[in-house]
Amino acid sequence: MSSSGTAPAYRRLTVDQRRTQLIAAALGLFAHRPPEDVSLDDVAATAGVSRPLVYRYFPGGKQQLYEAGLRRAADELEQCFAQAQTGPLTQRLAAALDRYLAFVDEHDAGFMALLQGGSVVQTSRTHAIVDKVRRAAAGQILFHLGFAAEGTPGDRPGLRLRMTVRNWITVVEGTSLIWLDEDKQPPLGELRDWLVDHFLALLLATAAGDAETAGIVRHALAIEDREGPVGDLARRVLPVVADAGHLI
Amino acid sequence: MSSSGTAPAYRRLTVDQRRTQLIAAALGLFAHRPPEDVSLDDVAATAGVSRPLVYRYFPGGKQQLYEAGLRRAADELEQCFAQAQTGPLTQRLAAALDRYLAFVDEHDAGFMALLQGGSVVQTSRTHAIVDKVRRAAAGQILFHLGFAAEGTPGDRPGLRLRMTVRNWITVVEGTSLIWLDEDKQPPLGELRDWLVDHFLALLLATAAGDAETAGIVRHALAIEDREGPVGDLARRVLPVVADAGHLI
Repeated sequence: MSSSGTAPAYRRLTVDQRRTQLIAAALGLFAHRPPEDVSLDDVAATAGVSRPLVYRYFPGGKQQLYEAGLRRAADELEQCFAQAQTGPLTQRLAAALDRYLAFVDEHDAGFMALLQGGSVVQTSRTHAIVDKVRRAAAGQILFHLGFAAEGTPGDRPGLRLRMTVRNWITVVEGTSLIWLDEDKQPPLGELRDWLVDHFLALLLATAAGDAETAGIVRHALAIEDREGPVGDLARRVLPVVADAGHLI
Repeated sequence: MSSSGTAPAYRRLTVDQRRTQLIAAALGLFAHRPPEDVSLDDVAATAGVSRPLVYRYFPGGKQQLYEAGLRRAADELEQCFAQAQTGPLTQRLAAALDRYLAFVDEHDAGFMALLQGGSVVQTSRTHAIVDKVRRAAAGQILFHLGFAAEGTPGDRPGLRLRMTVRNWITVVEGTSLIWLDEDKQPPLGELRDWLVDHFLALLLATAAGDAETAGIVRHALAIEDREGPVGDLARRVLPVVADAGHLI
């Protein structure tokens, strides 16, 4: 597309709109190609503008555009975690996971490039953006487990529980990467159920040695449904351990 | 230390010995300081040689020395995973974990800098070295679960089981980082037991929906001891779920 053909559009957009448009174009490209395979010319062509115009908005070039896109994607990702505080905990977790996994599915190549490391565009700034998303995810989970949101007065979770929640988030990230690497197998619904199972398993293993976590688990189990993920997992685990009576 | 004072040493070491000495000096420094805070002068001073001598062996400077040190550390780490195929699985896992956690304890700052990302010295090569260690760890665990070692004929594990093992390795890494971040709390023995519990929990959650993993778990449980980690975990979990009879 020639820049003269799109010149009128230059005047129709405000600075903010143009910025947003360029970031959206970049995000679309970074989503499906590793950063090293995306050029500023690609971004300009996708947005239907000239390369100098892209530079006018992002004098730092591709790196600056990548970070702006990453910040936008991080905001979008954090929105995935917002969930009403009603219903069984596993139901809330499954709903948030569905949104997160849809995001991973949509931004596949970009998600992999960012988290697998070794990318040329990774800096301490991009790591800080990703870490902020992880902290937001952990904060949301702890909030649903009954703790005060960060920056507000109230109870703080202990080390074991915090480690468990952060570990599960790591599991979700790692599983997402393997899932992308394995041609998106198993199907998303199965993956989500399996991740919920792993959350329950880790939480229960921690509850076994941590009074605080045990109290939270007891409270959470009381409001779970018989047909929900906890009952389902229990009924599937029992046959596996049926012959291990010698251990108890 | 002046280079003239140590000049005689130049002639006493072979090329290989000198290389090994410089890598050891670098590893010692990288273990307790992030790479950006280690200079080639520091390495030269620690090894008692001149800066030009360090450059003669490592013309790529700090980056090359860092990668050589990382490769050496990775080899050392892979040795941690070697474990005799006798006794209950949890006992073997605990023994390997003890060695791994001792390594993390010893190389604390270097371990964090490497895995936390955003470091200036991280490249696709350093990522490949770390990934090789992860694959070696996963390979060892799958070997103890009854699968053929990589590169040899025999059964290959299915996707769910592979994902579970890789996830647990991710949990171990993440937990190690948090542990370093939390001034090495809880004590190493507790941390090891907790990681074994998390391995059992993840494996059991996967076994609940995967016939292959279920078969392996049944086989593994049969050779566990009543006083071992599985029985202990079961006895600690039961009181937590005692009031959740409505779910089964």
